Amino acid sequence: MSHWLEALRNRFLLDPHAGTVGVALVGVGGWGMTNAAALMRTRRFDIRGLYDTDGAVAQTCAARYRTDRCTELDALLTRADVAAVVLTVPNPAHADLVRSAALARKHVFIEKPFTSTSAQARELIDLAAKERLTIMVDHTFLFTGAVKKIKQVIDSGELGKLLFYDSVRVNLGLFQHDINVIWDLAPHDLSIMAHLIDKKPVALTAHGTVHFQGGYEDIAYVSVEFEGNAFIAHFHVNWLSPVKIRQTLISGDKKMLVWDDLDADEKVKIYDRGVDVMSTNGGKAGIHDLLVSYRTGDVHIPKLEVTEALKAEAQYFVDCLEKNEEPFNNGQAGLQVVRLLEAADRSLKQGGRKIEL
Amino acid sequence: MSHWLEALRNRFLLDPHAGTVGVALVGVGGWGMTNAAALMRTRRFDIRGLYDTDGAVAQTCAARYRTDRCTELDALLTRADVAAVVLTVPNPAHADLVRSAALARKHVFIEKPFTSTSAQARELIDLAAKERLTIMVDHTFLFTGAVKKIKQVIDSGELGKLLFYDSVRVNLGLFQHDINVIWDLAPHDLSIMAHLIDKKPVALTAHGTVHFQGGYEDIAYVSVEFEGNAFIAHFHVNWLSPVKIRQTLISGDKKMLVWDDLDADEKVKIYDRGVDVMSTNGGKAGIHDLLVSYRTGDVHIPKLEVTEALKAEAQYFVDCLEKNEEPFNNGQAGLQVVRLLEAADRSLKQGGRKIEL
Amino acid sequence: MSHWLEALRNRFLLDPHAGTVGVALVGVGGWGMTNAAALMRTRRFDIRGLYDTDGAVAQTCAARYRTDRCTELDALLTRADVAAVVLTVPNPAHADLVRSAALARKHVFIEKPFTSTSAQARELIDLAAKERLTIMVDHTFLFTGAVKKIKQVIDSGELGKLLFYDSVRVNLGLFQHDINVIWDLAPHDLSIMAHLIDKKPVALTAHGTVHFQGGYEDIAYVSVEFEGNAFIAHFHVNWLSPVKIRQTLISGDKKMLVWDDLDADEKVKIYDRGVDVMSTNGGKAGIHDLLVSYRTGDVHIPKLEVTEALKAEAQYFVDCLEKNEEPFNNGQAGLQVVRLLEAADRSLKQGGRKIEL
Amino acid sequence: MSHWLEALRNRFLLDPHAGTVGVALVGVGGWGMTNAAALMRTRRFDIRGLYDTDGAVAQTCAARYRTDRCTELDALLTRADVAAVVLTVPNPAHADLVRSAALARKHVFIEKPFTSTSAQARELIDLAAKERLTIMVDHTFLFTGAVKKIKQVIDSGELGKLLFYDSVRVNLGLFQHDINVIWDLAPHDLSIMAHLIDKKPVALTAHGTVHFQGGYEDIAYVSVEFEGNAFIAHFHVNWLSPVKIRQTLISGDKKMLVWDDLDADEKVKIYDRGVDVMSTNGGKAGIHDLLVSYRTGDVHIPKLEVTEALKAEAQYFVDCLEKNEEPFNNGQAGLQVVRLLEAADRSLKQGGRKIEL
Repeated sequence: MSHWLEALRNRFLLDPHAGTVGVALVGVGGWGMTNAAALMRTRRFDIRGLYDTDGAVAQTCAARYRTDRCTELDALLTRADVAAVVLTVPNPAHADLVRSAALARKHVFIEKPFTSTSAQARELIDLAAKERLTIMVDHTFLFTGAVKKIKQVIDSGELGKLLFYDSVRVNLGLFQHDINVIWDLAPHDLSIMAHLIDKKPVALTAHGTVHFQGGYEDIAYVSVEFEGNAFIAHFHVNWLSPVKIRQTLISGDKKMLVWDDLDADEKVKIYDRGVDVMSTNGGKAGIHDLLVSYRTGDVHIPKLEVTEALKAEAQYFVDCLEKNEEPFNNGQAGLQVVRLLEAADRSLKQGGRKIEL
Repeated sequence: MSHWLEALRNRFLLDPHAGTVGVALVGVGGWGMTNAAALMRTRRFDIRGLYDTDGAVAQTCAARYRTDRCTELDALLTRADVAAVVLTVPNPAHADLVRSAALARKHVFIEKPFTSTSAQARELIDLAAKERLTIMVDHTFLFTGAVKKIKQVIDSGELGKLLFYDSVRVNLGLFQHDINVIWDLAPHDLSIMAHLIDKKPVALTAHGTVHFQGGYEDIAYVSVEFEGNAFIAHFHVNWLSPVKIRQTLISGDKKMLVWDDLDADEKVKIYDRGVDVMSTNGGKAGIHDLLVSYRTGDVHIPKLEVTEALKAEAQYFVDCLEKNEEPFNNGQAGLQVVRLLEAADRSLKQGGRKIEL
Repeated sequence: MSHWLEALRNRFLLDPHAGTVGVALVGVGGWGMTNAAALMRTRRFDIRGLYDTDGAVAQTCAARYRTDRCTELDALLTRADVAAVVLTVPNPAHADLVRSAALARKHVFIEKPFTSTSAQARELIDLAAKERLTIMVDHTFLFTGAVKKIKQVIDSGELGKLLFYDSVRVNLGLFQHDINVIWDLAPHDLSIMAHLIDKKPVALTAHGTVHFQGGYEDIAYVSVEFEGNAFIAHFHVNWLSPVKIRQTLISGDKKMLVWDDLDADEKVKIYDRGVDVMSTNGGKAGIHDLLVSYRTGDVHIPKLEVTEALKAEAQYFVDCLEKNEEPFNNGQAGLQVVRLLEAADRSLKQGGRKIEL
Repeated sequence: MSHWLEALRNRFLLDPHAGTVGVALVGVGGWGMTNAAALMRTRRFDIRGLYDTDGAVAQTCAARYRTDRCTELDALLTRADVAAVVLTVPNPAHADLVRSAALARKHVFIEKPFTSTSAQARELIDLAAKERLTIMVDHTFLFTGAVKKIKQVIDSGELGKLLFYDSVRVNLGLFQHDINVIWDLAPHDLSIMAHLIDKKPVALTAHGTVHFQGGYEDIAYVSVEFEGNAFIAHFHVNWLSPVKIRQTLISGDKKMLVWDDLDADEKVKIYDRGVDVMSTNGGKAGIHDLLVSYRTGDVHIPKLEVTEALKAEAQYFVDCLEKNEEPFNNGQAGLQVVRLLEAADRSLKQGGRKIEL
């Protein structure tokens, strides 16, 4: 093994024999357990210890994975045999914990949304850069077969010039107690859009309603404007819909795409449909007419890779660590989402005023 | 026949023998022909003459209904045997033609949207009131089995306190040459919402995009706020969607309703689903928690009246004339829609600024 | 114009000036009117006269098409300016009327099923051959965009070796008063199958039930065996289903196809799915195991030609007459369907016994 | 505790302290593990030992449930602390194993289909009766919310007089190596039908095709006739369909029901639709006409009990043992299914001949 590679491996404590990364888990309730299970299924992580504010929860997880249950968080974060920390804790605790981990020179895998404010996100990104650490934000959907295929289709230019992105993510419940429906549901769609659409958002407006006293917005609409103004994105998130809808429309001037995440077999459909518009001088002086023609061709339903998204993401985490590559779902990607969420909150508070980004 | 009834019938020239109303048609191209056919199917109208700027079109219609083709519009509007005028002309011509008809003391059946500006609508409403004339705006959807059933369900209180109204009306094309997608598609949904929802809209925001040079907004989102702030309405209209969607969600705190107008047999579904939320003192001092519980019960798909909406509306027109009753789709109803459209245009022009109504 | 072409045209009285074929209509009630309208839309037929046992019906149609209403059927069939007869009459009257028309040397367009018995069909086919006349049986579905595309797909070999044909055509009503559900609904599917599948049926079994006293079978299942035994076709026809289903599955060993005729936009789907089976010697002596592997690839939804099937069929009729070509939906095609229907009746009467064809 | 109850409990070794039944597992591969997990989730069973011909498989299961792995089957079956045996083994082994268990005076829970022949089933039923033992055949579907609701609806008379039962269970794969598609898939539907429909089947016909050399029928249709002849049942089972369909239609003369097991939320729909037929003297002497009228009313989608079917069945097993009650899915129910499967095989072998039951 080359000296360089050895040094690299040592840097994040990839066990030279087992080829695994030593991790510490912070937060091992419901979703924390799910994360732990996915890590283990890759066979590339070694859980060196864990911590949870709920002792019983910590005990259960420690027993299952035969690992140490730490009662001192700092002790866990600073263990020498821990290269990365997996944080599955409530959003308000994100910033402090990532900072602590980074200061202890640990890589971080953290739940979305990355932080509560963009200022925090920026600080942590800088800190990680300085310490040459990797932050990966858990934007799980980016690892599904559907999103991977859609990215491939868009990047290939098959859709042509993109016209709009429209996402609907609605169902009945589950109400969250500490955040509104935008912070709960929209991070999925905002991170997917940011991943797919290579355009710069410049302004955002959010409309929503609080129906229950003491609660947060339980239904909301978010519109995002982009540089150049010829593209629009829109998100409908809702805890009060009788039916579950998970549908995204992405139209280009060549082809159009529908992603219905609830369709078991035919999630992504690509429509060879479009509009051809020519502006032309009409019969009357000074009047411009539009010549519009419609194309309707075949529909194509590509086979999607069958992946377990969370396991693939965990695998990607270890791959990035090993190759010392920046993940696409890094702190910067997390920041992009937080900026939009933050702007959405500001817009809601100002009664739907447009917020420049 | 009582003196009063006779007087009434004379007022609008209901033929005492045939029981029909004498009408003049102005505009008999595509949709004008459809209107004419619906009028005739009621067997309550007698077409006394017609006018169209396109002579050949006028000739075709005149031949089919064996009626006079007038070349002078004024002559037609002032004919003594004409009680009502059916206007199927481009929107910019609405105000002048309604005014002329009203000044000639004719009742009016007019395409939606009623006028181009709310000022025009107000003027015409006043004029009609002064002359004791009926204006009916063609909000055809209000006469469908689906909307009639939904109104009945909402009015009965079955849904409980209403929470939101969400409408999606998207498909590929048809681009209009003189109006944007909001003026083209949203009048359907705005008139339906105004008919169903007994709440006062107080502000509106619209977002949209023009994709083709020389064109109008071809995709738009409209959010409407209501007095009291505990209800929100939202409309997605779009000429660039690969798939056709005509779906409206209306949730109440007792039940929830989905109207899918493209479903041949099961257009309206009523879900016995809901959320019960109680605000309560949590364990920690000063912290309020939400106790949320979800109800999921049966789904009910009511049988809808099978009606031909346009014929039913024509029948309602003659009934209102005969009984001297104000139609619910009168000038005032038309004005409500125009006010929202006008505000939407203003919001679009100001980059998505909220417009107070 | 060449002598030959002139002679040909004279043979079937294609009007040399107008380029139209003179036809007589026999039976002009509901469906007869539909046929008449389709003929006229091609602008290639000239209705020279018509006959119906119901005088009022005949009068209505004669008025609409400004043609003669004949009270003597024979006089109509023998008119010199009539080249073809369109028969839209109850099935029991088919054989006699086709015979009369053929003896008068007229081409025939006749409703399905062709005749009541295969003996009749054979006699008429022979008669037409002798007189060099064309018989076209109205198997309208063969002219739809869906069936045309499916035929193209199968003929191209894209599906590979065909494995089965499964058709479901069920809904509530309409009960027929003179025939059972097989004679009512299955001719559609039997004619489509015969058109698509180039295999020889050798036996048939039918199961059905009469639920209402004095009625006919209102639900039935028909299984058809084919030469070589490696292909099976099955038909479910039903007047008592709460839901309408029009679905055909056609699987090949390379690809598989689903035709859902009720899907507005995506009627035909081609699945790149299949099973690869190898018979192999297993571990134990003398035991053969199957190695089975499954392929699942993309789905393709081809754009279908948008045609008005009945008009296209009428156009094809005049084309065949003009070019003196045998239509694929000729008497022979009609006979194929009648043979299967006849066998189905025999099987039903014998309690589901298999009938060799 | 009464003497009687104590005796009863002792009879099947319900542990008086823990309230559990001691069971032995025979066969603990894939589905055997699933059964074991379901038993354990009821907390009413205590696994006293297990056996599998595959030692590694046996070891894995024994480790998970911390129980004995027996290498001698007879020793396991005759253990004094075992009251019931759970058999999850290939069908050909069923009869011998049930016999051994019964001779050892153990209750039996056995996979479907119960046996390979009806003669075996009858022998085992007699043996169990003599020994006062319970046989429960694993007809899991009978414990789903859907089937429980459908049974309730039918038993209430809501559908009226039943007219037909039509079941489609098709998908791509999985080919079985030792049985045909009828033995693989139809036991589900035959057991459900027998559970729901209180009518006596009197004859059966099966049609099917073997597409792959050395294989078994991979697509088949089964028609079942019933006493009185006014009801028909039909089953389509298929391993070669590109799409997965799990749909059952059950029509009555009052209402009709559709069960779509793949619909996540709306599995069972009850249609207030029907046909009213009156036989009447028509206008012509001796001719009877049918007056047919159609009813179309609301559709009702009942909420289904959310159950884990297999756990509910395991719970029912222990309940039946405890209360000494005969389960509805007993040996007799298993025999009913085997008789139909056996007849289907005979019909297939005789080329689709009708088999009297």
